Amino acid sequence: MRPRSVAVVGASDDATRIGGRPLAYMLSQGFAQGREGALMPVNPNRATVQGVPAFASVAALPQAPDAAIVAIPGEAAIQAVADLGAKGCGAAIVFTAGFAETGEAGAAMQARLLEAARPSGMRLLGPNCLGMFNATLGYFPIFSASFENGWPRPAARGMGGVGIASQSGAYGSHLFAAARDRGIATPVLVTTGNEADLGLSDIIGWMAESEEVQVIAAYAEGIQNGPRFIAALQAARAAKKPVVMMKVGRSALGQAAAQSHTASIAGDDRVMDAVLAEFGVHRARTTEELLDVCYVAQRGIFPARNSLGVVTISGGAGVLMSDAAEAVGLPMPPMPEAAQQKLKELVPFSSPLNPVDCTAQAFNDMSVIGAFAESMVTDGGYASVIAFFTQWGASPSTAPRLRAELKKVLDAHPDRIFLLSILAPLERVREWEADGFLCMEDPSRAVVALAAMGRFGAAFAEAPAAAEDLAEIPLPAVSPNEADAKRILEAAGIPLVPEAACQSAEDAVNAAEAIGYPVVAKILSPDILHKSEIGGVLLNLGHAAAVREGFALLKQRARAHAPNARIDGVLIARQVVGGTEIALGVVRDPVFGPMAMVGLGGVFIEIFADVAFRRCPVDAAQAEAMIRSLRGFPLLDGARGKPKADVAALAQALVALSRFGAAAGPRLASAEINPLLVLPEGQGAFAADAVLELTD
Amino acid sequence: MRPRSVAVVGASDDATRIGGRPLAYMLSQGFAQGREGALMPVNPNRATVQGVPAFASVAALPQAPDAAIVAIPGEAAIQAVADLGAKGCGAAIVFTAGFAETGEAGAAMQARLLEAARPSGMRLLGPNCLGMFNATLGYFPIFSASFENGWPRPAARGMGGVGIASQSGAYGSHLFAAARDRGIATPVLVTTGNEADLGLSDIIGWMAESEEVQVIAAYAEGIQNGPRFIAALQAARAAKKPVVMMKVGRSALGQAAAQSHTASIAGDDRVMDAVLAEFGVHRARTTEELLDVCYVAQRGIFPARNSLGVVTISGGAGVLMSDAAEAVGLPMPPMPEAAQQKLKELVPFSSPLNPVDCTAQAFNDMSVIGAFAESMVTDGGYASVIAFFTQWGASPSTAPRLRAELKKVLDAHPDRIFLLSILAPLERVREWEADGFLCMEDPSRAVVALAAMGRFGAAFAEAPAAAEDLAEIPLPAVSPNEADAKRILEAAGIPLVPEAACQSAEDAVNAAEAIGYPVVAKILSPDILHKSEIGGVLLNLGHAAAVREGFALLKQRARAHAPNARIDGVLIARQVVGGTEIALGVVRDPVFGPMAMVGLGGVFIEIFADVAFRRCPVDAAQAEAMIRSLRGFPLLDGARGKPKADVAALAQALVALSRFGAAAGPRLASAEINPLLVLPEGQGAFAADAVLELTD
Repeated sequence: MRPRSVAVVGASDDATRIGGRPLAYMLSQGFAQGREGALMPVNPNRATVQGVPAFASVAALPQAPDAAIVAIPGEAAIQAVADLGAKGCGAAIVFTAGFAETGEAGAAMQARLLEAARPSGMRLLGPNCLGMFNATLGYFPIFSASFENGWPRPAARGMGGVGIASQSGAYGSHLFAAARDRGIATPVLVTTGNEADLGLSDIIGWMAESEEVQVIAAYAEGIQNGPRFIAALQAARAAKKPVVMMKVGRSALGQAAAQSHTASIAGDDRVMDAVLAEFGVHRARTTEELLDVCYVAQRGIFPARNSLGVVTISGGAGVLMSDAAEAVGLPMPPMPEAAQQKLKELVPFSSPLNPVDCTAQAFNDMSVIGAFAESMVTDGGYASVIAFFTQWGASPSTAPRLRAELKKVLDAHPDRIFLLSILAPLERVREWEADGFLCMEDPSRAVVALAAMGRFGAAFAEAPAAAEDLAEIPLPAVSPNEADAKRILEAAGIPLVPEAACQSAEDAVNAAEAIGYPVVAKILSPDILHKSEIGGVLLNLGHAAAVREGFALLKQRARAHAPNARIDGVLIARQVVGGTEIALGVVRDPVFGPMAMVGLGGVFIEIFADVAFRRCPVDAAQAEAMIRSLRGFPLLDGARGKPKADVAALAQALVALSRFGAAAGPRLASAEINPLLVLPEGQGAFAADAVLELTD
Repeated sequence: MRPRSVAVVGASDDATRIGGRPLAYMLSQGFAQGREGALMPVNPNRATVQGVPAFASVAALPQAPDAAIVAIPGEAAIQAVADLGAKGCGAAIVFTAGFAETGEAGAAMQARLLEAARPSGMRLLGPNCLGMFNATLGYFPIFSASFENGWPRPAARGMGGVGIASQSGAYGSHLFAAARDRGIATPVLVTTGNEADLGLSDIIGWMAESEEVQVIAAYAEGIQNGPRFIAALQAARAAKKPVVMMKVGRSALGQAAAQSHTASIAGDDRVMDAVLAEFGVHRARTTEELLDVCYVAQRGIFPARNSLGVVTISGGAGVLMSDAAEAVGLPMPPMPEAAQQKLKELVPFSSPLNPVDCTAQAFNDMSVIGAFAESMVTDGGYASVIAFFTQWGASPSTAPRLRAELKKVLDAHPDRIFLLSILAPLERVREWEADGFLCMEDPSRAVVALAAMGRFGAAFAEAPAAAEDLAEIPLPAVSPNEADAKRILEAAGIPLVPEAACQSAEDAVNAAEAIGYPVVAKILSPDILHKSEIGGVLLNLGHAAAVREGFALLKQRARAHAPNARIDGVLIARQVVGGTEIALGVVRDPVFGPMAMVGLGGVFIEIFADVAFRRCPVDAAQAEAMIRSLRGFPLLDGARGKPKADVAALAQALVALSRFGAAAGPRLASAEINPLLVLPEGQGAFAADAVLELTD
């Protein structure tokens, strides 16, 4: 990432060719300046390349380069990698295509490429990658044509640089160019190509610790290695560097397109959402949103308790921003009463609630705007402020007066995020930015970006959970039956509906007395799968005589309907009345491992896909947050005249199941409790059915 | 809207003042050019204003102006309006503020202003309005400062002009300036201020029929007159002019803000959604989206069956667009097999499914791009095509070659919408646009805008429903009880669960035989509200003896538990088994009148607010579309192992209820059938309960 010397294997004298561009870029951007021999073209046919002394082969290099570019085809590239490793080179960036992206034969070649680097421990970026740059060093091992329209910008005073990590070369380079054109500093770009060795996670992890990068923008089609990805996100959060991510393949159509594009593993998109949310990553829906969030994040202000104050000269735009803020959950509390009074005295027809509309009257007396904005920050206490001034930000008759007023407020409150929503040509926007303002034309986009700053702040403020070593739970050799599955989960701390397998009518009565009436009686037989179809379930048995009678009746029905079935006895269980049916589960994601899942049963899951996921294990607070995030949560919270459900007991069961999921190891494919019956507050939650699916 | 002469009452010699700007603008834009006396400043203190001969009073004007601007305060404005009317002026634009927007006293003044115009029939725009312009005539009766940064653009060849109608002056003028800066032609802008006389609907209606405007952009806080608004939308649809609307106040926060801003009536936002959807209006969520849709709509291509083809040089961007298309319901069918084969032969590593990724290989041979794009149009048959070429659209080394290739395809297919997603400075974009291309940087925004073109096309292709005169249905003097409500609805064509009120056990048995077993028996008493609490409902009576027994039992229970209750007999009703519970309703919206409503019962309505609205009456196809739009629709369509429900019968009941809603007149506040029990296919749907709420 920060080499002192670079070899270019396949260096071309033609600065527009793949093997020529990196050399030309590095020469133009001063990489080798003052360091004789820092750039080492390798070309068997020329004494110099682009004016730089060249070497005939890797073996002929006078010293081991810190890094090397490999821009030669097929087998020769593999040889070059082996030679570079032998020479002592630290890392190679392999542009060469024709590897795993082309099919099986290519994948085998890629395995040999990786093998060639292994003996020396040299790291690889690519193959089939566009390359990377670290502009702070003038280091440009990349063949993108993006620089025809301009070089990466240095970060402005007080602003952080955005590092771009992308699995796609074309998209990464598009992102760089779009960022540059918006005036966003992007000191580092890395595209990872086929990820034979280094992957997106490694790059994010490096950026988390690098001085060059304060904001991380990532593009992913699929994550190959879950633990490495999570370690990278943890590092970024620990360094308080926001990660803004475009993860494509959200839709069915998109997943199909992603598969035709690369061999990425696209798991359940909701699992990805859950993992990103866990670490406070902002998942952008559009490229523009990604850039918006990066743009505002450069400022480096991440309020743990965000709130939005809006000062506007258009009441209409104020309403529009209120709609937008509610849609993204950014609170817009009203101004304090006293402050409202003060502002109303200043401008009689103003509406100083929040949005604070200072009306077109401010056109004549702009000191009003300064007073209003200052009051929003000091009296309203908003962490984020949008000032909507449309063309006033550009008009010669308004812009200078407006700037004078707002600058005072900005300078007095460096801990707040000020964002101007103005309509102005780029050169005018640059002037505002030079004064320290953030500028965005569309106020709705501004709201979305500001909301993200608060979520980053909340994630940074959260104490990272200490990794806990859970003792591994021994599992049976094959998937257990329902009764055994229940016993395993009970041992893991999940309360079951009280039940007992009984061999005699006396046993059954004793069990019922212990459990408490009314009870349910079910015939117990491994050979009778659909008990209720043969009348094998009796509900609502309220006293000893009924239990005794029921025991006999079940035996008789079983004999009548299934004369050959093995009968293990009768199951006596408490009849749970008035519980809400919840589905709890653990599913093993191929990338991220065991994920805890909770949802309301029935239509909520089947029709609305209303479930919440989080990596196992979860603690009580996390479990409760998952439960509260369900759209169907009101049903647990007293909707439709039902008593409030025992959410604490439900959360406790989710915690226990998630810890079981984490401790059970990779053989646990899934665990499902459906239904878990959640009783009214204080009365608990009990598993009524359970399935464990194990692999060999 | 197209005056030949204009008086300016309160004309100022200072071109930056409210009374000075319109005169200065019209002089600069050639309004009066060649027409001596077309501009008539009225100012008692000056012989000329801005060089134009002035008149001391309205009475002193040499002729009746077609239109007049009123830019003088308070009472004098009212007098000016009266004088202008008396003189024979056609319309006045009243800038003056201090009317209804300031409270009750102002509202009374506004009533007098309107009164002043009434005798002559002169129309009013405003008061408290920013004004309007019709740039095709140089007519600028407006005091916005927006023109400091540029005048409205004329429409480019082959492109339509966008008319802006706005209830907010500041927002309307922001919209104009933002459109201008994006190169969108806006020949007409009208801001409506307090809407004492002319309102937003009148302006939309005028634009629907005007030559100047081909696309209508509207901003609304609240609609005052439902029928006028609907007539305007009908006119726009009939003229095949798309309407793009920003209606703020979607959220609770936004509604509160809207109320503090103006006195707009903000009804149920879902009703507004339903009305806009009925006429194919695109409701934009953000200003940017509004401008995006207008930008693409200028092209005037509205495919009734839209489909999207994507040609890209970045697989990643292709996946991103697939995600975006699925999110907005824009179909992206795959390329035909044969065409895929053809393209694969052309570029071996390409992925020609759709998105069609022609890969960076096209950099060397751009004829590939032309061939790919042509194949998408002719073989794929896509109505809309996005070409994602990022910086290639601006780079000197790529842009000219790219333009040559794509221009051929564009020119050969003038019926398709071509949109380039490129990263280019404004001046480069203008060159592409001059060639007839649409350009948008963000591909996701492009997808949203293209999807809107298809919805416009579908709305334009729909035959407008012939207005039907429904005979008014007589209603009782007060809200009827359940039995009477059911009878009224039965007469309106809604099937009821068969039932009969019975006075004797014999009656009950006869009724049960006629209805068919099993039946339900309920005690009938106006004094027993909660029948089931006293055991007053018996289910599942399967034969005559059970009915006879039940009759006696119900009477006895009623006597025991409510000795003083009046007993009207026993209700015998068919016991409907296996029906899905649906809620049907009609609610009278204060703005749009009776709205038909359908939703699945229970949690669907209470937790998910999963209901569909449409204005009464609806026909069978519209009713079925409403039902299918419900998120819970799968429950009627065989989800969870249930048989498919009789959706046709449900739709028929919805049609009948909606026709009742339309015919019942304004005294019907609401009608509710909850539940309507929908049986399996072919078995019908029956109302089990009904409530009619009438007003005096």
